[in-house]
This record gives sequence, structure tokens and C-alpha cells, in this order.
Amino acid sequence: MTESRQPTAEGVALAAAKVAQILPKTPLLPLEVAGRTIWCKAESLQPVGAFKIRGAWHRLTALNEDERRRGVVGVSSGNHAQGVAWAAARLGIPATIVMPTDAPAVKLANTRALGAEVVLYDRPGGEDRDEVSARLCEQRGATLVHAYGDPWIIEGQGSAGIEIAEQLGRQPDLILAPCGGGGLTAGLALACPDAAIVPVEPEGWDDVCRSLASGTIQRIAADAPPTPCDALQTPVTWPINFAILQRRCPFGLWITPAEIRAAQRLAFSKLHLVIEPGGAAALAAVLAGKVELAETTAVVLSGGNTDAAAFAQVIASDD
Amino acid sequence: MTESRQPTAEGVALAAAKVAQILPKTPLLPLEVAGRTIWCKAESLQPVGAFKIRGAWHRLTALNEDERRRGVVGVSSGNHAQGVAWAAARLGIPATIVMPTDAPAVKLANTRALGAEVVLYDRPGGEDRDEVSARLCEQRGATLVHAYGDPWIIEGQGSAGIEIAEQLGRQPDLILAPCGGGGLTAGLALACPDAAIVPVEPEGWDDVCRSLASGTIQRIAADAPPTPCDALQTPVTWPINFAILQRRCPFGLWITPAEIRAAQRLAFSKLHLVIEPGGAAALAAVLAGKVELAETTAVVLSGGNTDAAAFAQVIASDD
Repeated sequence: MTESRQPTAEGVALAAAKVAQILPKTPLLPLEVAGRTIWCKAESLQPVGAFKIRGAWHRLTALNEDERRRGVVGVSSGNHAQGVAWAAARLGIPATIVMPTDAPAVKLANTRALGAEVVLYDRPGGEDRDEVSARLCEQRGATLVHAYGDPWIIEGQGSAGIEIAEQLGRQPDLILAPCGGGGLTAGLALACPDAAIVPVEPEGWDDVCRSLASGTIQRIAADAPPTPCDALQTPVTWPINFAILQRRCPFGLWITPAEIRAAQRLAFSKLHLVIEPGGAAALAAVLAGKVELAETTAVVLSGGNTDAAAFAQVIASDD
Repeated sequence: MTESRQPTAEGVALAAAKVAQILPKTPLLPLEVAGRTIWCKAESLQPVGAFKIRGAWHRLTALNEDERRRGVVGVSSGNHAQGVAWAAARLGIPATIVMPTDAPAVKLANTRALGAEVVLYDRPGGEDRDEVSARLCEQRGATLVHAYGDPWIIEGQGSAGIEIAEQLGRQPDLILAPCGGGGLTAGLALACPDAAIVPVEPEGWDDVCRSLASGTIQRIAADAPPTPCDALQTPVTWPINFAILQRRCPFGLWITPAEIRAAQRLAFSKLHLVIEPGGAAALAAVLAGKVELAETTAVVLSGGNTDAAAFAQVIASDD
């Protein structure tokens, strides 16, 4: 049971030190929005194209020799998959990744290219990925590396917040981050205790928004609408995440597919970055004017793994 | 006469120190090519989307009060234009930029948005940009900031090489760089005296290749073919550049439009970077197997200013 300990600020600091040994800091790029400068943390420039490599590295390096031998199982639409596969390959740990059949082709291909075994589950058909992965762990004696409901993963993702504070020379007053299950958001909250933390979710997948508003964990309905943000398509946060979010997030925000596309286009034209739909969620909320900017506002651009045809369509249009 | 002094390694070191005060280091990203790791210097992530900001900053900060008051004139298809405009705006110096009528719309718009006055000249019709800019300088008493034939510009661009060596912990054995007039290439040569330096030009615009091979400066013919690499469309290098290139570059390489597109696609899919055609020239030469890689090879991705429609077309195709 990975929830047996709580993630801590000390754990985030340890994760940041471990990450700094193997990954260079991603740049924190200034961007003018409505006459203000915001700071964009370009996690799309990580080796696997997303921040997920942070948590995976912190988690897998914490495994003992016996656990490493028996391997790990990850569950992911793609970015966590690649993070776990990357860390496992570096550490010589066998990795199996449970991925949805409708994951972007590029994410499936990259995960396999990193040497991981991919087991598909039927997300559109409603198959429960947690059941699939639990069964695999039992069969193989492997350790489950959950994408967000895990203290090491939360601490690892939080290392991005340590870097942001170092790069700014202070903690930002406000951090907006794309939010799926809440691993990154919870980690940032631990990393930057002085900052307000705002999670941003896709329209129709606003379970964290509703959980924060209601004070109890809410779940996405089975008939949730499709979203371009495959990376944020998470039906429910976990108590280990929510305990932190509830303490530190004043509210959550959600953004529409059109708002996401506008943010992808701005990142293309002004930052020259390829940002996937889910990775652009926090920037989309700023652009859409859904939050009052603080004196120092940081925005996480969390990933860049998007199929070429989809990205071409976004940047070539102006809707 | 800006050629009255020669650029020096000390000048590059000074430029690097000045640049470090105002611009964060651009990342040096590892990329696997044919089983080898090469190091990609992502200059597309500079505030104006190209390395040109380095030379412009070094040049404009070297002007005295009187020169600053009288302003500067730059000549550029767009990236140098934006670099000069950015530096001028920061320093409160009036800037006029001479740009070709066929420059990418995004470069024209960005230059104007940075507060510079844009004067167009008829590049397709053969109007001589050096004449246009010389006339403007005379009329206004302004200082010409040449895009490459200037000791400060060369030194400033060389600061990228200082950063590469710092980031690697050593000088690379080989550096490939996109080459227009040879400002960047010459600067890198001064910055990294232990490295072999290879300039890469677009097909049909290989004047530096031919100059190196023949030992005397060669010029592009008036009927040169069109190239997608607007940033590298320079008809002739200058003696101040060639003196360094001749001493330090074993040879030059040229690449085709299709090789450029393949490099842009690889930068998109593996690095999640938007690279303009000219910015991808050096990577294109590596991908095409046109150079034997060294133990440590660095490649400059020099810019990312490309129109959305053009970039969409490149990444959506596979030719």
C-alpha cells in the first residue's frame, strides 16, 4: 500500500536533489500576457517530454534491490508511462505499463521504445485500469507505481516547484498547473508553501474543481465528454492528493478545448514550444482571464507529447 | 567602420558575461541520432526566438551615450531584426530595421511589436540591402548594426559557445551551426578553440562552403534558387568573418529542403521544439549523415520563428 506514508516537504527537497543529479533544470520562460509577465516552466523539455519523469525517478530510486528485481507496473495514458519506462531503463528495472487503447500513438510508441512492456486496457469501453494493474502486480510480484496517488510520485513532481523558486529567486505568489489526478499540484503545494496553488482541469473532467468546492472527493461520471487532454483524463483524485489540495488550493479552474488550442498557439508563436493539449491547460486559464494574476505568477507547461497531425491542425487554425 | 577592430576570444568572454546578466542559459538538450547522443543548443528559446539577441545585446551595450541617442539601423530577414529591436527597447535606443518584403509575416510583426521602425526593401527584385541601410545611417547619423560583419556581433553570438562548454563541462569536439553570413560560426570558433566548427548552409546558398573550398570569398549568384531558410539567405560572407572561418572550419556542408524538413520533424517529435527551417540546418546535416560525429558533438538550433501554416505543413507531411 503506497499510501502508508504521507508526502512531505522534506521528501520534495530530497526528490529535487536526486532529480538535479540526473536532469538539467527545465527553463522558466517569461511570457507577456495582457501586459503582465508570467513565468512558464517548460516541462515539455524533459527527456520524455513531460514532468512525469521527476516522480518516476524519485519513486524507482527508492526501491530496494529485491523490489527492483521484481519490477514495476505503471498505469498511464502516456506521460507517466514514459517517465516510469525512462527511469526503469536507467536503473535496469523491468517495467510494465498499462495504457489505454486510445492513447496517442506517439505516447504508445515512445513508451515501447524506452523498453517497457505495454499492456493495453479498454478505456473507451470503461475497463478499470486500477483493476488491470493490481492484477498484474499480484501476478508478477511487481511494485505498483501509481501515476499520482503515491507519496514518492507527489514529492517527485514537487521538485518542479523547487526549481521554479530557485529560478525566480523566491517562491511565486501563484502557481497554476494542469491537473489530472493531482500529483503535480500536490507536489507543488509542498514545494512552495507560500504560493497559492490553482489546479486547472479540462471541461467535463473537473472532478478536482468540484471536490474542492464541495469538500469531498467527487468522481467524473462514466458518460464524461471526450477531451483533447488525454493526460488529464483522470476520473478521480485520491485521498493522499486531496488532503493536500484541500489545504492549499483556494479553488480549481476548468478550461474549454478552444481555450486550450489558443494556449497551444501562443506557446507555439511566442515560446516556440510544442505543448500537448493537457500541458497547455494552466496557460489556457491565464489567457482566458479565469484567474487574477499575482505579482509573480508561474504556470507549468507540463508536457509536449502530441501527434503531429493533431498539432498541425491546432496551429493552422484560429478558432 | 565597424571592421576597424578584430573580434577576440576575450571579447566573446565579455559578451558571455554581459549576456548572462540578462538572459538565462538556453538548454542544451540531448538527442539520440543513430545510436549516438548529440547535444542541441536550443537558441529558439531566447526571448526573440533566436540567438541573434546575443550579438545585438553585446553591440548595443557597447555604444556610447551620443551613439545611443542617434539610434541604430539593422538589416535582417527577421531574427537579427528582432534581436536589435529587443536590445534597443531595453536600452531606450531608437531602432530602424531594414527588412525584405518577403520576410515571414511573423518576423515582420514581431519586429514592429518590439517597437522598431521597419523599412522594407525589395529582396526578390534584387535591391541591395546594404545600400538601403547605409543611406539610412547617413541620413540619421545612426550606427549600422550589421547582422554578421561586425566584431561585437561575432563576439556576442560566440557567447552561445561559452554556454555550451559550461553546460557540457568541456568544449565539444565538434560544433555544427546554421550559417548565413558567418557571424555565429565565427563566434563559436572564438569561443571554443578546441572544437572543429562546421557551418551548414541551404542548398544553392552555399557561398561559405565554396569560399572555404576555394580559399577566397565566393558570392551567391543573382539567380540563386528559393530556399525555405530565410534566415540563411545571405549572398556573401565578409572578410572579418571569413578570416576566422578559414582558420577554423575544415569544410562547410549544405542541406536540401527535404533534409531540413526531416530535422524540423525530429525536433518537433523528440525535443518538442518549434525550429524554423534555417534553425534546423545543422541538425539536418547530422541526420542526413553528412558529417562524422565526434565523441562530443554539439548542434545549434538557432531559431524558431516560423509561420504557423508553414510549420503545420512540414510536421503534417513525411516527405
